[in-house]
Amino acid sequence: MPNYMMVLEYDGTAYHGFQKQPGLPTIQGALEGALSRVAGMESPLYAAGRTDAGVHARGQVVSFHGRLKIPCARLAQALNALLPPDIAVKECAEVDDGFNARRSALAREYAYHVQCGGQPSPFDRRYVFRCRGGLDVEAMREALGAAVGVHDFAAFCRREEGKSTVRDVYEAELEAVGEKLRIRVKANAFAWMMMRMLCGALLEVGRGKWTPDRFRDILESGESSHGAQTLPPHGLFLERVYYP
Amino acid sequence: MPNYMMVLEYDGTAYHGFQKQPGLPTIQGALEGALSRVAGMESPLYAAGRTDAGVHARGQVVSFHGRLKIPCARLAQALNALLPPDIAVKECAEVDDGFNARRSALAREYAYHVQCGGQPSPFDRRYVFRCRGGLDVEAMREALGAAVGVHDFAAFCRREEGKSTVRDVYEAELEAVGEKLRIRVKANAFAWMMMRMLCGALLEVGRGKWTPDRFRDILESGESSHGAQTLPPHGLFLERVYYP
Repeated sequence: MPNYMMVLEYDGTAYHGFQKQPGLPTIQGALEGALSRVAGMESPLYAAGRTDAGVHARGQVVSFHGRLKIPCARLAQALNALLPPDIAVKECAEVDDGFNARRSALAREYAYHVQCGGQPSPFDRRYVFRCRGGLDVEAMREALGAAVGVHDFAAFCRREEGKSTVRDVYEAELEAVGEKLRIRVKANAFAWMMMRMLCGALLEVGRGKWTPDRFRDILESGESSHGAQTLPPHGLFLERVYYP
Repeated sequence: MPNYMMVLEYDGTAYHGFQKQPGLPTIQGALEGALSRVAGMESPLYAAGRTDAGVHARGQVVSFHGRLKIPCARLAQALNALLPPDIAVKECAEVDDGFNARRSALAREYAYHVQCGGQPSPFDRRYVFRCRGGLDVEAMREALGAAVGVHDFAAFCRREEGKSTVRDVYEAELEAVGEKLRIRVKANAFAWMMMRMLCGALLEVGRGKWTPDRFRDILESGESSHGAQTLPPHGLFLERVYYP
């Protein structure tokens, strides 16, 4: 049975997240609906990142075993004609039998977008979190640096029964262009809500409420009662997934 | 009576154009609704460009005579709190009594965005016109160059009773980045539908259906029965308005 991978881009605004839920619009639901017209799927659809409601993707990766009714080279075009315009297939390929979009992934990269102060742009309103007033970008960078490496992110994620919250952050950087900040984090994997809670904690540092040392202490303590905001989903993008 | 100008940015997707129409959502209707809370207007609201339904703006300019109930320095912030998130006030200022956003404007600049071929991005879907297949960008540039200068644009606009269709195009350029094209035109003023019809005609050239010479001949003939497409509004932005 052939195995296929696809790279997806989507605007998550109108969806209740990636994962299928009965009676609710989801990315997986829309994608499987379109796929059923052009392929016989014989395995579940695996996804590299289970994006939550309202989170966007520029490079989500999915895989499935199945039989195509059309040549693989025409799969992306055929699916894009069937999918709503807020979901697009960028790439399709047949892959080795052992490939699994979730389990084979070596790393995921997310980016969170913040605008601090200034006039909001109507064109960013679905994709950028706006916070009032200025932020101390250098202090935020120092705190973010403390998140690199292997840590238990219990303080900055929502716990899931029986699951570890230890993750290995490979890279973390904060780009500032004018009033726009982009917080980019690459890690082996992300715990639930980790990116939105980590960025919320960075804003505490940016506003001068926490020092970078306090950020580091809270991270190391594993205590989640620190009161920092969990940022809303609309500023978050799954940017890219890395494979061997 | 003081005179004020404002620079606006808006996503036109949800609106029936700038100009107020009874019972329909319009930019002017939303703006006057917000303004009535913070100012007593004593003149009509003048706008530099009367954008059609679905057209966007990054730099629309409006002016009005009236009395503010709050300091001018706080007007933008107050209006942004009252306006829906798809309309934003970028700048407000008190201006000379003789200033009129429409009549004082020396030039307007519009840009039209086209993506040719390739996978559509969900994030561009409201702002970029997609056309299939490749386009001959050099031929399009040559044709566009013929539009610079004073011409009667009767062939590339919709006529309005009793109005001239002669316009002076100061600059016209086509930028191509990968599969994305941006057609930017600066003119003293634009006739109705001129930008969307001009860009539709350029696509005929890009597809090889018209030579640049044919484009020039049709422009000079003033005949509007050429059959080129009028491009949809969502790719069009009023970018900027120039004043003395």
